[in-house]
Amino acid sequence: MPRDGTRARARLRAAALELYREHGYDVTTAAQIAARAGLTERTYFRHFADKREVLFDGEAELRTILVDAIAAAPPDLGPLAVLVRAFNAAVPLLVANRPIAVQRATVIAGASALQERAYAKVAALTDALTDALVGRGEMASAARLAAQVGMAAFDHANLRWAGDPNVDLADLIAEAASEVSRLGEGWAGYNGG
Amino acid sequence: MPRDGTRARARLRAAALELYREHGYDVTTAAQIAARAGLTERTYFRHFADKREVLFDGEAELRTILVDAIAAAPPDLGPLAVLVRAFNAAVPLLVANRPIAVQRATVIAGASALQERAYAKVAALTDALTDALVGRGEMASAARLAAQVGMAAFDHANLRWAGDPNVDLADLIAEAASEVSRLGEGWAGYNGG
Repeated sequence: MPRDGTRARARLRAAALELYREHGYDVTTAAQIAARAGLTERTYFRHFADKREVLFDGEAELRTILVDAIAAAPPDLGPLAVLVRAFNAAVPLLVANRPIAVQRATVIAGASALQERAYAKVAALTDALTDALVGRGEMASAARLAAQVGMAAFDHANLRWAGDPNVDLADLIAEAASEVSRLGEGWAGYNGG
Repeated sequence: MPRDGTRARARLRAAALELYREHGYDVTTAAQIAARAGLTERTYFRHFADKREVLFDGEAELRTILVDAIAAAPPDLGPLAVLVRAFNAAVPLLVANRPIAVQRATVIAGASALQERAYAKVAALTDALTDALVGRGEMASAARLAAQVGMAAFDHANLRWAGDPNVDLADLIAEAASEVSRLGEGWAGYNGG
């Protein structure tokens, strides 16, 4: 049994993904995940609060990268440009996680309890981006709108990337932000603004 | 006991909101909600699948209004303008529901299980808007991005409206769409596009 928590978590993550894919989320227990990982159920619950969290262990790392990149962006950049820079900073992590991400997405899509947790994680990430933009001096409500719009663009790019791994995710992120621009232009034209 | 399902649902919704506010979501049972409404537990479960759904009974009506307004919009309008029209069509419903909406939001904010269900409802509504835009001839991925961005603007307007009921929600919706435009302009300027 490894003493290093990072290795234990990685083994639990891999074991959970295997079991959820083999038998489904509903019937798999934390005890079975721990056993597959060669660890005890007690160790499982030291690392993860429930059967769902084990699938979302990578979120903290993504959040840290995004928040740090927002804080480090030049002060004169607009919020959407700041967010695009931050998403670009996360591309290496997303590329590294890609093989697992596809399996994980399939498991999540198959259980509404996991989908609801995934939505909550997106909301928590959006809150973190909002706070990071507020830290740059944005008003809270404007920061929240920018974070939601940025996350929509990031999600759009990731979905396209899931369908075609041969394109550059950074290019798709920039294209998604440009699509948001065109949406806004269409509205400004209609609204006379 | 009313034979009309609509009246039974309304009584169950009101009873659930009362009990969740008085005692909290976690300790309240479906049987208690039914008893408060003067109905049986069996009737409760004929109308709502679980303890959470009773708080989201208005979503179907909102979705119908939005989807119908998208389908009825002039064919030459851009997607964000179509969505703003649809959100405007829902303003009377939101105004009518306002007193309950505030209490409901407080209850939902107090229980993570309810928050997760609320996120799932937003996702389902976003899917419905996406499908309605696809029905107008938008590409699926562009429609999804537009629906997400539109929902971000709608959420932004509703949050501001929750803080100040004296302003016109329709004005806040238009302002939120204009804020999206300015976000996009900032990106286009940075990106040289």
